[in-house]
Amino acid sequence: MSQSIAMVGAGALGLYYGARLARAGRNVRFLARSDLATLRTQGIRIQEPSSAFQVPTVRAFASPEEIGPVDLVIVTLKATANRELPRLLPPLLHPGTVVLTLQNGLGSEEQMAEVVGAGRVLGGLCFIASMRTAPGEVTCLHPGSITMGEFDRPAGERTHAVAALLRAAGIVCNVTDSLVAARWRKLVWNVPFNGLSIAAGGITTEKICASPELAGEVRALMREVAAAAQALGHPIPESFQREQFDVTPPMGAYAPSSLVDYRAGREVEVEPIWGEPLRRASKAGVDTPRLALLYALLRQLTAR
Amino acid sequence: MSQSIAMVGAGALGLYYGARLARAGRNVRFLARSDLATLRTQGIRIQEPSSAFQVPTVRAFASPEEIGPVDLVIVTLKATANRELPRLLPPLLHPGTVVLTLQNGLGSEEQMAEVVGAGRVLGGLCFIASMRTAPGEVTCLHPGSITMGEFDRPAGERTHAVAALLRAAGIVCNVTDSLVAARWRKLVWNVPFNGLSIAAGGITTEKICASPELAGEVRALMREVAAAAQALGHPIPESFQREQFDVTPPMGAYAPSSLVDYRAGREVEVEPIWGEPLRRASKAGVDTPRLALLYALLRQLTAR
Repeated sequence: MSQSIAMVGAGALGLYYGARLARAGRNVRFLARSDLATLRTQGIRIQEPSSAFQVPTVRAFASPEEIGPVDLVIVTLKATANRELPRLLPPLLHPGTVVLTLQNGLGSEEQMAEVVGAGRVLGGLCFIASMRTAPGEVTCLHPGSITMGEFDRPAGERTHAVAALLRAAGIVCNVTDSLVAARWRKLVWNVPFNGLSIAAGGITTEKICASPELAGEVRALMREVAAAAQALGHPIPESFQREQFDVTPPMGAYAPSSLVDYRAGREVEVEPIWGEPLRRASKAGVDTPRLALLYALLRQLTAR
Repeated sequence: MSQSIAMVGAGALGLYYGARLARAGRNVRFLARSDLATLRTQGIRIQEPSSAFQVPTVRAFASPEEIGPVDLVIVTLKATANRELPRLLPPLLHPGTVVLTLQNGLGSEEQMAEVVGAGRVLGGLCFIASMRTAPGEVTCLHPGSITMGEFDRPAGERTHAVAALLRAAGIVCNVTDSLVAARWRKLVWNVPFNGLSIAAGGITTEKICASPELAGEVRALMREVAAAAQALGHPIPESFQREQFDVTPPMGAYAPSSLVDYRAGREVEVEPIWGEPLRRASKAGVDTPRLALLYALLRQLTAR
């Protein structure tokens, strides 16, 4: 399956995964805006920890109509651009098209489902440290993995086929039967560290961990996220929370993706990472006072 | 009583109250640093809403030794300067000297008591909108009032005598039998508004009230402060909390004093306004998660 693939979004994720798929011989078509001319003339260059590769010829397009229907759509747009989905996705669909969203936080699958129908929607979480360093250029510090699943259903044959496709392109890929549980687990790290890195004045995880007060707030926020997840049927063991804290100090002066966006003046994904979890916790009757305060601050700090 | 008065601190508060006392004929001696030369050569100028006055001749000194023992010491230093107290206060004392601290938040009386002994200590809360606009110059937008009491005791004859002295100088002055209860009441406003004005990126109370999320957090922080006060024996009615919110929108684009300090690069009184209330709440077994998060953020944001 998936002979033809459309990459919607040509940032760090889209360029990296798209380049890997193209190098593996797949028919990949990129929907691009600012990078369009560079992609057409120079292709994509990827720098990885111990190697580098180039995809000199890239099929890049300015509109979904020029791409046309494909077998697999991979959405790597920032969630803040999702208002564009009703315009971007329909031209890419044929009856069997699958849509895989790799966006952060909660709510992405629901937003895709509204536009293309729930039956087509797959979601994935990217554990990767990568950066778009110039048009068509990505530096990947840690290729990590993708955890994939179906929207609101256990993983089926289709999920495994897409995972196999990604693996054949050299992307480590795990399949989960509960995508939403996996998303809550990822929030255990993202809610405190991405949030406090902005709210505490634009600081890295190193400074957060070095402040006893902020480190205590990280753990308290993790407990709030876990309490909400538990109430929604996705228990997260305490040992997982501890691990998520403990892996952080060794990362050194790491800037979470939201801080990178914030510093660069780009829109921050406040709703998927803080707003939607808060609303779901509240619906489930779970009090998450720190999350509520952090969300209110981040909305204000990132308002434009 | 109180024929001689030492003003410790020559900022907006010290200059304003000191000038009023001097104009009323009291023997006022100012301890000053940066404003010393100006005070000596030009005196103090006060601009009030509908009038202005000058105190052309001011007794200003560079050290407490030059001032010597007085009947009443009024401390208007920022609490962040309290490490200087053991050097500043003893030379000002004779056996009957009373020390009135007009500092913000919690812990000020305790810090005075450590240096001069608990028996001498009075405290007051200033409800005033004033600003030092130049050396020796204060603009007072709203003279407001002082609420005064004894440290850890009901108000006695001595408190009423000091209040009378201040009233004779045109300062509205109320006496309370529970200074600490009055301090907790003032925190109902100061904790949320002073704190969020800094943590939400340097915004006025107008912007805080205009954001439904931040306004909700103001009310939630007020409830946390009231819960801590209640557990410590100082119940604060809900109607008081509501009033404290409701008086704020009409104030327009008001910058709380902590924000003014923060913007000016001056030290912010993080411990008296957030740290000490948090520690007292925690000792009393009251969970104040929003206050804890706000404190952790403010410590980091105001660190030097």
